[in-house]
Amino acid sequence: MMSRLLLHAAQNKKLERLVSGQPMTRGLVDRFVAGVTLDDAITVAQRMGREGLDVSLDLLGEQVEDLADATAATDQYIDTVQAIARHSPGATVSVKLSQLGILADRQVCAKNLNQLLEAAAAVDVDVELDMEHSSAGRPTLEAFHDVLPRYPDTRMAIQAALRTTPEDLAAFVDIKPRLRLVKGAYDEPLSRALRDRKEVTAQYRYLAGRILAHCPVPAFGTHDDECIEHVRRAAEACGVGKEDFEFQMLYGVRRDLQRQLVRDGYRVRVYVPFGSQWYPYLMRRMAERPANLLFFLRSVVGG
Amino acid sequence: MMSRLLLHAAQNKKLERLVSGQPMTRGLVDRFVAGVTLDDAITVAQRMGREGLDVSLDLLGEQVEDLADATAATDQYIDTVQAIARHSPGATVSVKLSQLGILADRQVCAKNLNQLLEAAAAVDVDVELDMEHSSAGRPTLEAFHDVLPRYPDTRMAIQAALRTTPEDLAAFVDIKPRLRLVKGAYDEPLSRALRDRKEVTAQYRYLAGRILAHCPVPAFGTHDDECIEHVRRAAEACGVGKEDFEFQMLYGVRRDLQRQLVRDGYRVRVYVPFGSQWYPYLMRRMAERPANLLFFLRSVVGG
Repeated sequence: MMSRLLLHAAQNKKLERLVSGQPMTRGLVDRFVAGVTLDDAITVAQRMGREGLDVSLDLLGEQVEDLADATAATDQYIDTVQAIARHSPGATVSVKLSQLGILADRQVCAKNLNQLLEAAAAVDVDVELDMEHSSAGRPTLEAFHDVLPRYPDTRMAIQAALRTTPEDLAAFVDIKPRLRLVKGAYDEPLSRALRDRKEVTAQYRYLAGRILAHCPVPAFGTHDDECIEHVRRAAEACGVGKEDFEFQMLYGVRRDLQRQLVRDGYRVRVYVPFGSQWYPYLMRRMAERPANLLFFLRSVVGG
Repeated sequence: MMSRLLLHAAQNKKLERLVSGQPMTRGLVDRFVAGVTLDDAITVAQRMGREGLDVSLDLLGEQVEDLADATAATDQYIDTVQAIARHSPGATVSVKLSQLGILADRQVCAKNLNQLLEAAAAVDVDVELDMEHSSAGRPTLEAFHDVLPRYPDTRMAIQAALRTTPEDLAAFVDIKPRLRLVKGAYDEPLSRALRDRKEVTAQYRYLAGRILAHCPVPAFGTHDDECIEHVRRAAEACGVGKEDFEFQMLYGVRRDLQRQLVRDGYRVRVYVPFGSQWYPYLMRRMAERPANLLFFLRSVVGG
C-alpha cells in the first residue's frame, strides 16, 4: 500500500521538483547516490575497489522523450566507460534503455546502444542493461538479443516477478548470456507480475537455480538474506565456484553485508548511481524497504 | 491450513479404510463419483451426453506399487475406451500415469500407455493424461513427449501453480500439442509451486492466454468464475471460436454453471470418476473448496 504510493510518487514530476529542491534531503541523497558528477562516481568506485568491492556505475535518469536527451545520455555513458578504463578498471556501467530513447525511437536507441557498446569494448569495460517497467521490457529484451552476437559479454537484468521471465529464461538456455536476476522494483499489475512478496522471493530462488545451471557468471541482485543464502547453497550444489558468479547490491544498502560477503570470499558488485536525477531512483528504494523510508524521514526531520 | 490437512488425509491409508467403510459417506460419493462399475460410468456419460455435455471418464486409483495392479488398470482402461466407442462416442478417458506404474517402472508404464493409446486409437477415442503431484511430473511430461509423434491427439494436463509450467509451455510452442490447463490440486512446497490463491489464479489467467495463442483445442479445467470469464474474453480476443476449445469441470461441481455454459454455446467436458478407490480423489476435492467440505459434513451428519 505504502509501497504503491511511493512508486506512484516516483513518477510524479511536481513532487520531484518539490523534493529535489529541499536541502534537507541531502543526507538521503548522500547515502544512496555517489554524487552529482562523474568525478564523484569514480571517487566512490575507487574507494569501493580498495575494500574489495566491484562496482557498476549508473548514470541516473529515466525515460527520455527528447531524442537529444538520449544522445546526451549516450555521450555521458561513453565518458563514463572511458573514465572507468582509466581510473577504476573492472567496474561496469548499468544503463536503462529508456534513457537511450527506446520508448521514443527504437532505431535511434539501437544506434546509441551500439555506439556505447563499441566504445566500451574498445576500452574493455562491460555494459549491463537494467530491466525497467514492463512497458520497456520487450523492446529491451529484443535489443539485448540483437547486440549479443557482437557483444556477448553484455549482461541484462531479468525480473523474477514478471510472468514472462521463465519463458525468456528458457529462450536463453541455448544462448547462455550473462544475466542479472533481480526481484523487480516496478509497480506492475497482477496480470503481468507476481505481487505477493513471499511468492516473489520463492520465484527468485527458483530462477536463481535455473540461471546457475545454465548461464555463465550470473549476477544476483538482492539484499534478501534468504535469497543470498539460497544462491550460496545452490551455487555450491551445482559446482559453480565463488569466483564464477557475483552478488549485486545497491550503494548504501546493507553495507555490512556487502563487506561480510567479500570477507567470505564472494564477489560483490555495488550498483553506484550518480547524477542529478536521483528522485525516481530513491522513491523506488523507499518503496522496496520500509527501513529506507525511515532513514529518509529521519533525514528530513533531522534537517 | 484446513486444505493442507485434507491433502494429508488424502494420503492416509488408515483414514481411507475407516471412511470408506462408512455407509454415511454414500451421499458424498454419489454426488462426486459416477459409481463403482464401468456400467455406472457409461450410464452417467450417456445422461450427460443428452444434456449436451461431453465427458472424460476417470478410473479412480492412484499410484500403484505392484506392477500387476498397473497391468490391471491398463486392462480396465482398455475396457473403458471400448465401452465408450460402443455406447458414448465422443467421450475421452483421463488416466494418471502413476496408475499405469510410472513411479514403479517407467518402461512398464510406457508399454502400458502405448497399449492403451493403441486400443483407444483403434476405436477412435481420445486419451487425456492427468498431471499429478510433482514427483510424477517430469516422468509424465517425458512420457507425453514420447507418445506425441504416434498419438498427436493425446492431451496432457499442466498445472498453473507449478514453477516449471511456463518453461514446459515454452517447449510446447513448436509442437503444439493438446493441453488441459488446471490450477493444480496437490500439496506442493513453495519451492516448486505458487501457493497464494490470488497468485495462482493470476498465473492461470496468464497461461490461459499463452495456450489459446499457441495450442489447438485447449481445455480449461476450472470452476473459477474469474478464470472462466477470462478464458471467454481471451478466446474471443485472439479469434479462437467457441467450438475450438473446451471447459472441463468435475462431476458434481458447479452443475448449474456447466449447463449454463452449454446454453451459451461453449463446449463443456465433465470429468467423471468411477471405481471403488474414490477416497484420495474426494479428499482433494474437499481441500479445494470449503463448499464441498460443508457438503461432506452435512452428508456425514445427515447419515
